[in-house]
Amino acid sequence: MNETDKAKKHVGEEAVLYVKNGMKVGLGSGSTVYWMIRKLGELVQQGLRIEGIPSSNQTAQWAKEFGVPLTDFSKVDKLDITIDGADEVDLNLNLIKGGGGALLREKVIANAAKELIIIADKSKFVTHLGKFPLPIEVLPFGWEVTAKQIGLLGCQPIIRKRDLETFVSDNGNYILDCSFEEINDPQKLHEQLIGIVGVVETGLFVDMANKVIVSNGSEIEVITS
Amino acid sequence: MNETDKAKKHVGEEAVLYVKNGMKVGLGSGSTVYWMIRKLGELVQQGLRIEGIPSSNQTAQWAKEFGVPLTDFSKVDKLDITIDGADEVDLNLNLIKGGGGALLREKVIANAAKELIIIADKSKFVTHLGKFPLPIEVLPFGWEVTAKQIGLLGCQPIIRKRDLETFVSDNGNYILDCSFEEINDPQKLHEQLIGIVGVVETGLFVDMANKVIVSNGSEIEVITS
Repeated sequence: MNETDKAKKHVGEEAVLYVKNGMKVGLGSGSTVYWMIRKLGELVQQGLRIEGIPSSNQTAQWAKEFGVPLTDFSKVDKLDITIDGADEVDLNLNLIKGGGGALLREKVIANAAKELIIIADKSKFVTHLGKFPLPIEVLPFGWEVTAKQIGLLGCQPIIRKRDLETFVSDNGNYILDCSFEEINDPQKLHEQLIGIVGVVETGLFVDMANKVIVSNGSEIEVITS
Repeated sequence: MNETDKAKKHVGEEAVLYVKNGMKVGLGSGSTVYWMIRKLGELVQQGLRIEGIPSSNQTAQWAKEFGVPLTDFSKVDKLDITIDGADEVDLNLNLIKGGGGALLREKVIANAAKELIIIADKSKFVTHLGKFPLPIEVLPFGWEVTAKQIGLLGCQPIIRKRDLETFVSDNGNYILDCSFEEINDPQKLHEQLIGIVGVVETGLFVDMANKVIVSNGSEIEVITS
């Protein structure tokens, strides 16, 4: 296991310490979250009573595999905590998410939670967001027009492909990866983007994270907003 | 045929006078647009060369039925004109749309067009928008949470049903019908709504219509913004 993978396991397992009996838990997506769900499954075997709402089909599958009970928003309208990864974290704990394509449901569970805890290896920390191309979920119908209008804000949107096919999100939408290089005002950019017809959601999570748990593979640091 | 239906036919047939040879035409949705497409089909039989992009599966079906050639946004990135109906039109030509559930694609074709022409019977004209419950397209995942947050803006969102089942848009989303009674600042309300996680699009079309063609069943009036 390399340093990055060690760090992911490290923070994933650390995060479950914040999950208490009886909690409703938003379950993020991605390779760091994998370790969190695995550990959560162990605690459930040992008697922890919690219910999770998964942010992707992949996460739902992991939850089933590791025995984490699931619920949904027809039964629960507030989550106690959401734990998720991120592709970039800046000094104000603003985030870029969506590298795995689950940004929309991730934002729904982040938004529904009293507390959002982000788990990340050290490499995700940046001074300014934007080196990681910003994922933007868009309606398939007319995405070409939407992409042009996004481009006017200072990037060249690239439609995400997987195995030569256009990638389709769990919600049936496309993802545009938009390299802005440096995003100086994430809130303003988000508002500009979300106002474009055809943009369903952006991967900018501004003022949402309450805590970031970070590791370089050996040491853990917890940063609170 | 009652007065309202006469008015719909009247403005629908009038609108095609704005469609010129070689144009790319956005085709709206709904019962008024039906008459427009039917008339457009007649002109195509007589030699008019145009191509349309439909905003709903229903409209695509009518276009086929009446012989109106269709294209899509992979071949065309700008429309010359879009012709569509509306549920309410105010004095500034701001609109509420989405009664038929096609508001998202309707907004895409409106946004992609150089000119948006709205066709409506007289009953659609109001001093203030909002008596007609505002349709808001939302992500099915977590729609209950989204509805609560929308409610905080001053309405009681009702999830749209059809034949006892939850109505699903052509894009796979749900529609919340939100009765605000009187909307004093449509642009502000739209911005507040579109910023809520889970809101995909609103039925508020602000500063988009260039012309409204209206009829009371006998007389036509054309209002330009």
